[in-house]
Amino acid sequence: MDAPISEHRITRRVQFHETDAAGLVHFSCFFRYMEEAEHALWRAAGLSIHPRGTEVGFPRRATGFEFYRALRFEEEFEVHIRIVAMDASTIRYRCVLTRGEDLIARGELAITCVSKRPNEPMKTIPIPETITSRFRAAPEGEP
Amino acid sequence: MDAPISEHRITRRVQFHETDAAGLVHFSCFFRYMEEAEHALWRAAGLSIHPRGTEVGFPRRATGFEFYRALRFEEEFEVHIRIVAMDASTIRYRCVLTRGEDLIARGELAITCVSKRPNEPMKTIPIPETITSRFRAAPEGEP
Amino acid sequence: MDAPISEHRITRRVQFHETDAAGLVHFSCFFRYMEEAEHALWRAAGLSIHPRGTEVGFPRRATGFEFYRALRFEEEFEVHIRIVAMDASTIRYRCVLTRGEDLIARGELAITCVSKRPNEPMKTIPIPETITSRFRAAPEGEP
Amino acid sequence: MDAPISEHRITRRVQFHETDAAGLVHFSCFFRYMEEAEHALWRAAGLSIHPRGTEVGFPRRATGFEFYRALRFEEEFEVHIRIVAMDASTIRYRCVLTRGEDLIARGELAITCVSKRPNEPMKTIPIPETITSRFRAAPEGEP
Repeated sequence: MDAPISEHRITRRVQFHETDAAGLVHFSCFFRYMEEAEHALWRAAGLSIHPRGTEVGFPRRATGFEFYRALRFEEEFEVHIRIVAMDASTIRYRCVLTRGEDLIARGELAITCVSKRPNEPMKTIPIPETITSRFRAAPEGEP
Repeated sequence: MDAPISEHRITRRVQFHETDAAGLVHFSCFFRYMEEAEHALWRAAGLSIHPRGTEVGFPRRATGFEFYRALRFEEEFEVHIRIVAMDASTIRYRCVLTRGEDLIARGELAITCVSKRPNEPMKTIPIPETITSRFRAAPEGEP
Repeated sequence: MDAPISEHRITRRVQFHETDAAGLVHFSCFFRYMEEAEHALWRAAGLSIHPRGTEVGFPRRATGFEFYRALRFEEEFEVHIRIVAMDASTIRYRCVLTRGEDLIARGELAITCVSKRPNEPMKTIPIPETITSRFRAAPEGEP
Repeated sequence: MDAPISEHRITRRVQFHETDAAGLVHFSCFFRYMEEAEHALWRAAGLSIHPRGTEVGFPRRATGFEFYRALRFEEEFEVHIRIVAMDASTIRYRCVLTRGEDLIARGELAITCVSKRPNEPMKTIPIPETITSRFRAAPEGEP
């Protein structure tokens, strides 16, 4: 079995529908970029965060971004996501967007594991061991 | 019981996240505007197109738009949607977007009724009578 | 002249295209809801945050959300946005989403005033007095 | 100089934010997929459809899609776009989405070349020769 992983990088190009009338990527799209990297991290670990018909979900609990430079149409950038903490029910990520040498933005995201049964409220549960065994928190530090 | 209906109008304002770097509403958003009007039509008929936990769905089969004038940030416009045909399993809509006196775009949309059971393929079914009894096709003609 | 204002509320309904395969509003849409309320606040102050052809922009510097309850298709909710700080070049907002009595999410957003000239880098500038004269920071405290 | 081209293929994976509460890709996203392939076609021809500061634009005039099969989260698919007609001011594309052997959807798109000067209305103009020299219409027939 492969060793557990804690980080992943994707390369992405800005699409036209992600820009706005100010000529820049709309800030809401950075959260989509971070999530795309998160789901790629799960796939790199041999997992899907949302297999068809699943009754286990990972709603987002808290998230944020700081923006340092603008991104524009057709620019290529890299998203580096890293698990910085993991406890019984929660995973915390940090994320850095770069374009070449330039730091574009830093983000963070916390998700919680819940059970989702039809007609029942969502309930926090421990993350299944099939998932926790595939991830480990990275040591703190840059990025 | 209220009489069946065939059309509905909504007023909408262009949001910043709907614009693109050309300074105009991105063309994909017109399909969202048309669908927002469709769902408002269903609510006006006392229905929801997607009640929680439903096993009946209405996937889109065909759609299109012709664009005549641009829409920009913060402009207000009207979306007028109309059922132009309805048979056992399909509803066809036409839609007109206007800004004051100006014609902005014309769209059309066809949807089909399906059953959706977990782990089964979607299957075309007749539209339930609780729905067909609430709608009727409008006579053709403008808009 | 009307008195300067510091807050605004909008009522909004969840649209189908804002939901995801988990059956909930995608978390990136909360940032769009907050921005829709921000721009409505500016309009309530007699302003537009992005008049056509403007060379003054307000890129987002930092933003975040904490999520407490899920939002689903067709639910109605309220977005309450409030200016909590304003200095020469920066405006800071706080935002609360509620559905009836239920607290759904809390957000915050900081924007900075820049000049945007073709072929020049964006440069931080003081917020024009025509704008600062229309707003004032609200006292801290809930929400 | 490279020969003019008429078609291009991209491979894409469904992202979570592109799905809706029915568990499928929202139909508006197919228009974004088609446009992503269009812009990749332009890049493959050595062009950008929206270089920074351009006064030449290509607003969409008409578009449509027919949908045959559903797309779901994390599925990989291919978008094949082809120029089927080109005259002085207009380019017409056809587009096919496939997942392995399965036909998912067929689309079409017509765009017109315009000049965009600040404070002037958009005006249809001939497509610049630097662009027309890089493209040629493909023979009709199925792609």
